[in-house]
Order: sequence, then structure tokens, then C-alpha cells
Amino acid sequence: MYTRIKSLKILPLRRSPTAALGEIHRIEALCDGVFAIIITLLVLEIHRPHLSPGHLTTELLKGWPSYLAYAVGFLYVGVVWLNHHYMYEKLQASDLPFIWLNLLVLGTVALIPFPTGVLAEAFRDGDLADQKGAVVLYAFIAALMSAAWVPLFYYLHKNPALSKSEVVQGTYLKQLQRPLVGMLLYLAAAGLGWFVHPVFAVVVFIFMAVYYALTSQGID
Amino acid sequence: MYTRIKSLKILPLRRSPTAALGEIHRIEALCDGVFAIIITLLVLEIHRPHLSPGHLTTELLKGWPSYLAYAVGFLYVGVVWLNHHYMYEKLQASDLPFIWLNLLVLGTVALIPFPTGVLAEAFRDGDLADQKGAVVLYAFIAALMSAAWVPLFYYLHKNPALSKSEVVQGTYLKQLQRPLVGMLLYLAAAGLGWFVHPVFAVVVFIFMAVYYALTSQGID
Amino acid sequence: MYTRIKSLKILPLRRSPTAALGEIHRIEALCDGVFAIIITLLVLEIHRPHLSPGHLTTELLKGWPSYLAYAVGFLYVGVVWLNHHYMYEKLQASDLPFIWLNLLVLGTVALIPFPTGVLAEAFRDGDLADQKGAVVLYAFIAALMSAAWVPLFYYLHKNPALSKSEVVQGTYLKQLQRPLVGMLLYLAAAGLGWFVHPVFAVVVFIFMAVYYALTSQGID
Amino acid sequence: MYTRIKSLKILPLRRSPTAALGEIHRIEALCDGVFAIIITLLVLEIHRPHLSPGHLTTELLKGWPSYLAYAVGFLYVGVVWLNHHYMYEKLQASDLPFIWLNLLVLGTVALIPFPTGVLAEAFRDGDLADQKGAVVLYAFIAALMSAAWVPLFYYLHKNPALSKSEVVQGTYLKQLQRPLVGMLLYLAAAGLGWFVHPVFAVVVFIFMAVYYALTSQGID
Repeated sequence: MYTRIKSLKILPLRRSPTAALGEIHRIEALCDGVFAIIITLLVLEIHRPHLSPGHLTTELLKGWPSYLAYAVGFLYVGVVWLNHHYMYEKLQASDLPFIWLNLLVLGTVALIPFPTGVLAEAFRDGDLADQKGAVVLYAFIAALMSAAWVPLFYYLHKNPALSKSEVVQGTYLKQLQRPLVGMLLYLAAAGLGWFVHPVFAVVVFIFMAVYYALTSQGID
Repeated sequence: MYTRIKSLKILPLRRSPTAALGEIHRIEALCDGVFAIIITLLVLEIHRPHLSPGHLTTELLKGWPSYLAYAVGFLYVGVVWLNHHYMYEKLQASDLPFIWLNLLVLGTVALIPFPTGVLAEAFRDGDLADQKGAVVLYAFIAALMSAAWVPLFYYLHKNPALSKSEVVQGTYLKQLQRPLVGMLLYLAAAGLGWFVHPVFAVVVFIFMAVYYALTSQGID
Repeated sequence: MYTRIKSLKILPLRRSPTAALGEIHRIEALCDGVFAIIITLLVLEIHRPHLSPGHLTTELLKGWPSYLAYAVGFLYVGVVWLNHHYMYEKLQASDLPFIWLNLLVLGTVALIPFPTGVLAEAFRDGDLADQKGAVVLYAFIAALMSAAWVPLFYYLHKNPALSKSEVVQGTYLKQLQRPLVGMLLYLAAAGLGWFVHPVFAVVVFIFMAVYYALTSQGID
Repeated sequence: MYTRIKSLKILPLRRSPTAALGEIHRIEALCDGVFAIIITLLVLEIHRPHLSPGHLTTELLKGWPSYLAYAVGFLYVGVVWLNHHYMYEKLQASDLPFIWLNLLVLGTVALIPFPTGVLAEAFRDGDLADQKGAVVLYAFIAALMSAAWVPLFYYLHKNPALSKSEVVQGTYLKQLQRPLVGMLLYLAAAGLGWFVHPVFAVVVFIFMAVYYALTSQGID
């Protein structure tokens, strides 16, 4: 079922399509495992009140930025999972560089719980300076996550043998537009958040999540 | 095997049933991953005694609300997994809105370890006011979990093409009754727990878990 | 592929064997997910030294009970996974009571990281009284894990339609011997550890892990 | 589909190849689950600043060893996953000793988040003595991870019936060279790091990750 992958070469088209699909599905399964864990780790970032008897309710109410951050983080991972999923539907084979570029994307996605937790903490217990630092961290990591898709789409564009025959030449080049827009806007958000006010950055974060959600099946 | 999902349209019935089932099974696998992780994260909520030499045994005995909360939380996730599982057995295809509504359910289920841990902590170290706050938190999140099933069942009712042909019209409308009962009773539990006594809320929580367990294969 | 399970009835033998196997494999996949997570959560129980500059090396050396506990815990989960795996190889169908009895086993296995961490902490930082408390906790949870297999094996014995045709009548009754031996010896270990010396209990724990490992493919 | 494995015997070659492959794929799925979780747990090792209002940004900047450690740890797990994956592609069957030797490899890989976190903490908050202790810990665990592959490759060499027919005699003997080189270099890194300077050890760690990455498809 599973066949050896020749690295750094285009796979001959004569390989049994079932074999190649098996390979693809295995990598996708690893990715799905990572997505499932990221989604669930977000709940660990929700602030647990340090209990001093009689103050639990107040503490829980003050935790609202955690709850909001959880909701946004969850939607964000959902969007990335959908994007990832729709990319895999176009593939029929993989090779070693593809696997590594794909791991790079996973490695940036797996970071999400970290800036999400920091952002929530800054808005709950921090002052304006802390919130500025936290939105810059979030923006940089989100820009990194966008950036990681660029080499992946470019590699798929250059190696059409990895895609199913019905995928039109130029598809991935068009998709490149989305992570590039993302990188620019996240960097702009970092600037806005640091030099103007952190709330502007948060607005951009929400806009970007919606943008990625609406274009998750690709731009046409 | 896996086919592209057309979003926001009813899927044509001529699609190969194997292809559509493959899609369904992949989403179900993601959900199963999330369920497996939630089940296992519950153990992290069990209170680890802060060791002061010679007091471990007493500390462990005082941890009983943690153990009880673990047992109840575990049964609860088990029940939701079963409900989820029986819903998927009726499906033959998916589309983008369905995936998002399904993610919404997952996102509320993934919260379980949080109120479970807070509840156990309140009954171990807190006073009556803390326990009131904790049961209200638990009731609100449980009501949210119930609420998340409402749009999912309604969408399945409105889009019969997603279900297998043997699923009778009206099946999902009947199932809607269960999350609606859940929402009402959880909100009642919040009121009882806050204004009367937290123990009443806990009784409703246990009753609801049993109700959902007994009806996990659907109401007829 | 997946078919509805009739609860509380013996499954008719005419069901397509593929359908029933599909069901079995899905539940097994959920269990494998839980096992994979438990195995990996054990590493979180390894004591991280609280850093006071210049003392890391000493702190790391004092952490040896953590390392030993990790090794034993890992072997233990491995043994339970093997036992679970060999049981599933005999099955051809499942029903609702089986799923619940199986969840009960999972729920006790998922506890392993908790007593493992407490045991390591007691041997690192605690006194003799703490170690006694910790071995009793470990023994009770291990006895519970053994106990959870009893109803599962008994149910399989009473419902031969769940097993493949080549499974001989009486197989599961014979297997019952193993969890029963386990329960008795773990309770004996609790007594020895509490009234005599905790080290005796640890010896029984190691003996039991070896016993379960050697008999993981069943007793003949 | 899944068949009983006879332990400690070479599997008869007449077993249906599909059956044996099913077995292999199930074990691989368990391993993939563990890999997915390890990859994602690394993010939990990233230092979360303890918030004192107004200092978040400084704290985040001081966290750079955490970020570097995350990147290296992620690449490392990726490399091991690839190595593991390419080994499985050569197999057609498994038996009980193979499963245990494979679990041994998993058990050492699952440790990665622990020394990774300690290393980052030592370079962030510790003095030179702490860094020496941390690189020695890292080197020992990495040497252990390399060592765990030796019995696995040797067993596969001695039991050719587990491998696909196209795998040439002597393949695994040649692969043995890689973990042996790893063990020697990691032990040398421990010596260099402890007696000379921790930075030398870190250089060896990076060199080894690159060496394993470049040879992940085996030496020819």
C-alpha cells in the first residue's frame, strides 16, 4: 500500500495512484492528529483562578479575556485545518521536500496556544505596555504562520506531478496571494498595536480570521 | 477517495457514495482525536498535592472532589462521544456549513476539563460562595454544549441530502428536543445552585448525564 | 460501512462482517488515541526543577524517582495496550454495553499518570509516611484498573456473537483469572506497603507489570 | 483483517499479506499518534512569563532560548518521525518482540519535551554550571534515543520475514551505523559540554539533527 518516496525527484506518474494516495492520507492523518491536539490544548490556556476562599466568582468573571481568546483561538485553528484539508484534496502524491515544508506549517500552527495564552493574560492582568507586547507577539507568530504557506504553495506550483490531473496550472500561484496578504496585514497590525493602540491590532486579527475562513476553499 | 466539498449547496445525489463516506470518516476521525484528548486531559485536572513532607496522605484524602469530578467528567465525555458517533452513522455526505457547525460542538465539548477542574477545586478548598460560582460556571458551559447541537440538528433537518436514504424525514427535528431540554435544565440548575444551594445543581448535572446517556441512540 | 448498533441485544449473525469490523476498528482507533496520549502525558509528570541558579545539576540528579516512575509507567501503559489489542483481535462486533464497559477500562487506564507522578514525588521529596500514602494510592488505582477488565471479559463470555467464530467457548472465562489475580495482589501490596514498608509494595508493582506483560496474549 | 500475532516465532510467509500489513499499519498509527502529541507538547515547554504588570515585553524578549529550543525540538521530532516512517515502509509483518522494541523507541522519543524544556530554562535563567548540567541531560537522553534503535534494527536484521521481499539482506545492518554514530557523538557532546563549554555540546546537537535529517531515508 505504502510505497517508498523518492526524495527530491518528481514522482513518475506511473506509480499506482492508490499507493500514492495512501502515502498522502498517512501524512494528512499525522497533521489531523496535530490539529486535534492543538484545538484541545487551547483549553489548558484558560486561566484557572488561584483559589482564595470566597473570591472564586470574581476571579472567574475577571477571566473573560481567556474565554474570548479561547473562542478566537479555536476558530483560528478550525480555519487553518480547513485550509490544510482543502489543499490535501488536490494532491495525489508527496515527496520529501513537500513533507518538510508541510512540517514547517504544522510547527507554526502548533504555536497558537502560546500567543493566545499570553494575549489573554495581558488583557486580564497587564497594563497597556503589556498589551502592546502581547499583540506584537501574536502578530509576529501569525505572520510566521502565514509565511510558512508561501514555500509550500510555491513548491506545489513547481511540482505539478504531486497534484491530481484535474488541478489547473496556476492554481497554487493564485493561492499564494492569501498568505502574502496575511503576512502584510499581520505586520501592519504589529505596527498599529505597538505605536497606536493594541485594540487596533485585535481588530485586524479578527478581520484576518474571517478573511481566511471565507477563502478557505481557495480563491478563484 | 476524498472529493472536493461544494460549500453552501446541497450535494448532488449522484456523487459516488464511497467518496462522500470517505469525507465523513475523515471529519469523524478528527472529532475522535479531539474526544480522545479531552478524555485524557481530564486526568491533568486531578489535584496534585503540594508536598509538605508527612502530609501527603491527608492531602490525597482531601482530594476526593477531584476524583469524583474526574469520574463524572469521564462519563460525560463518553456520553457526548456516543451521541456524536450515532449522529455520524446517519450521514452520507458533508458540506462546509456542516463542518463549521460540527466544529462549534467540538469547541464546546473541549471546554469540559475547565469547569470540571474549577468545580472540584471549589468543593475541595472553597467556601459556599465559591461553590455557587463554580456550579453556575459548570451549568453555563453545559448549557452552551447543549445549545451547540441545536443548529447542527436543524441544519441536518433542512439538508436531507447529507443523510443516508434510510433516515426518515423528521428524525433530526425529534432529536432537537434533547439539547433543548438540556439547555433549560442546565439554566434551571444555575438558578437553583446560585439562589438555593449548589448541591441541587450537582444533582441536576448527574440527572442530565444519565438522561443523555439513556437517549444516546436518539429518541423514537 | 458503519452500521447502527442495537443496544442490549445480541447482534444478528447475518450482519455483514465488514460492517461490524468497521465498527470495531473505529472504537479501537479511539482507544489507541487515548493510549497514545496517556503514554505521552507521562513525560509531563517528570519533575521539572524549580531553577535557582547554580543548582540545576543537583536538582536533576535528585529527580531519579521521576525517571524510574516514567520508565515503569511507560512499560505499564505498553502492557495494557497489548492486552487491549489482543482482546480486540478476537472481536467481530460490538454493542452499547460493550462500548461502555470498554470506556470504563479506558477511564481507569487514563488515570495512570496521576499515581505515577504522586509516587515519584513521594520518593523524591517525601518522608516514609508520604511514601506509604503514595503506594496505597498506586495500589488502589492499579486494583481498579484490574477490576475494570472483569465485567468486560464476563460480558464477552456471555455474548459470544461479539467474537469471531474461531474463538472457543470459555476463552474469556479463563482470561478472567488475570484481572482477579491482579486485584488480589494489588490489594495485598497496599497492605504490605502501609503496614510493613512501601518498598514491598513497589516490588509487587514490578512483579505485576511483568506478569501482565508475559500473559498479554492470554492464558491457555 | 487483523490477525493474531504469534509471539517469539517468525511469522509463516503464507499469512495473507493484507492481514500482516493491517497489523503493521495499526502499530504505525499508534506511533503517529504519539509523534503528533510529542510535537504539540513542545509548545507547552515554551516559557510563559509570570506577569508583573509592565514587564511582559521584556519577559517575552528574555524567552528567546525557549523559542530556539522549540524550533530545534520540533525539527528533531520531525526527523525521528521520518526515520520511523521510512523503516515502516520496509515492513510487511510484526511480532511481539518487534512491538516491544518499537515501544522502547517511542518511550525515548516521548522524553524529548523534558530535556528541551530544561535546556531552554538553563540558558534563560541559569548560570554556566546549570547550562553544563542541562546539556549533559540532553546529551544522555539523545544518546538513549539513538541507542533504542540498535536492538530494533538488529532484530529486523535477524528476522527477515518481517520485511518485504524486496528488502535486501544486510539493509538493517548498514542502518545500525547511524544510531551507533549518534550514541558516540552525543556522549562526546556530553563530555565537551561538561568539561569544556556547553556551547560546544549545542553545536554537536545541531550537527546530529542535520545528520539524521540528511540520512532519514537510510544509508546506501
